[in-house]
Amino acid sequence: MGEFRPAEIQVLTCDVFGTTVDWHTGVTRQVAAILGEDVDAVRFAGEWRDRYLPSMARVREGGRPFVYLDTLHRETLDEVLELHGVDADEETRRRLVRVWHRLPAWEDSVRGLARLRERFVVAALSNGGFALMTHLVKAAGLPFDCVLSAELAGTYKPDPRVYQMATRLLDVDPGQVLMVAAHGWDLDGARAAGLRTAFIERPAEKGPGRAADRAENVESDLSVSSYVELADALRC
Amino acid sequence: MGEFRPAEIQVLTCDVFGTTVDWHTGVTRQVAAILGEDVDAVRFAGEWRDRYLPSMARVREGGRPFVYLDTLHRETLDEVLELHGVDADEETRRRLVRVWHRLPAWEDSVRGLARLRERFVVAALSNGGFALMTHLVKAAGLPFDCVLSAELAGTYKPDPRVYQMATRLLDVDPGQVLMVAAHGWDLDGARAAGLRTAFIERPAEKGPGRAADRAENVESDLSVSSYVELADALRC
Repeated sequence: MGEFRPAEIQVLTCDVFGTTVDWHTGVTRQVAAILGEDVDAVRFAGEWRDRYLPSMARVREGGRPFVYLDTLHRETLDEVLELHGVDADEETRRRLVRVWHRLPAWEDSVRGLARLRERFVVAALSNGGFALMTHLVKAAGLPFDCVLSAELAGTYKPDPRVYQMATRLLDVDPGQVLMVAAHGWDLDGARAAGLRTAFIERPAEKGPGRAADRAENVESDLSVSSYVELADALRC
Repeated sequence: MGEFRPAEIQVLTCDVFGTTVDWHTGVTRQVAAILGEDVDAVRFAGEWRDRYLPSMARVREGGRPFVYLDTLHRETLDEVLELHGVDADEETRRRLVRVWHRLPAWEDSVRGLARLRERFVVAALSNGGFALMTHLVKAAGLPFDCVLSAELAGTYKPDPRVYQMATRLLDVDPGQVLMVAAHGWDLDGARAAGLRTAFIERPAEKGPGRAADRAENVESDLSVSSYVELADALRC
């Protein structure tokens, strides 16, 4: 892959959980509100999210047919509830799965995306399902031009087919697309599919006591600490 | 299909060409700007659009594999150019195909959609390709929550699979979706897939001397003359 030339970029595809919205704060608060004193909500949120990548890996590697992220969240929720010794009823479990549909944006996301959107087509590209992502983007007021979901490729990031689906649907070459994410594994997948990469460092992404990906350990064409800084770097 | 209850609606899927944007004015002006005195741009735009439904029908009926709307526009453009005795070069033909990517909204569309969006998930659902539709929605400033395209179903409206794709991706039952269009054939297709229907009458849609669909000849659950009136009717 040649030198990175910002002038060649036409489309930004942006990861959402952790990169654009603060899932840890959002999930922790909602879990605490729903389950109350029964659980340590911070630990609960972390343990639930820990099961996220492994649950998708089985789908990606062909071990099971594509299932919607809500379904994976429900299965891993049942495990974490058991781990915490909580016997929640069906309605409570459904409410808990829905907490991932409503999460707060990081404070720079709306401002930065609004500037980036003046110059680029800016798309959400998440492992969250299309409906989930549409609800989340709407509730958080994120100014994306369109919503894309791994669901449209029938697999999950970092499978190259997800990034290829995005370039095909937006009718651009992979080298004209900048993948924006707070996770090295996502940028590695994007690079393998021929996309350019921008890392946004979000040290608080996983909450207290859990290490997030840091710039020094992630390979990327650009490395910034917010969407506003990304807009500066791309001269928007 | 039972009585129409607005309270059951959660999602609005909105047709775009003719319903949300004024393709006739947009195409006529851009054709005149590109081809100048060589053609009668009003007649040209009408004759180009006349070939739209027949060109998609062959794909829908299985006579040819799915091709992108830009490709169909290019084929029918070549026919219309020949009809008008114009020998345009390749670059001019490419520019002409792109006029469908940039069209003006009807004056009520942005205001009406912004109100509807406060209460419903509001999606574009067009036969235009995903990239075309993303460009068009962005350039016209249309406040949709997400973009959907028949491309995602690999066929064209009024094939029921297009409407089913929309309900599946947005995770709702067909009866919770209101299809909004200025064309009876689109609403007939939506109804056959179990959706509810709203007709927006756009008498000037096809320009002077060409009859557009009129309320008295279209079957629908709701019939209005603008997005603002639709917002009123749905108490937004």
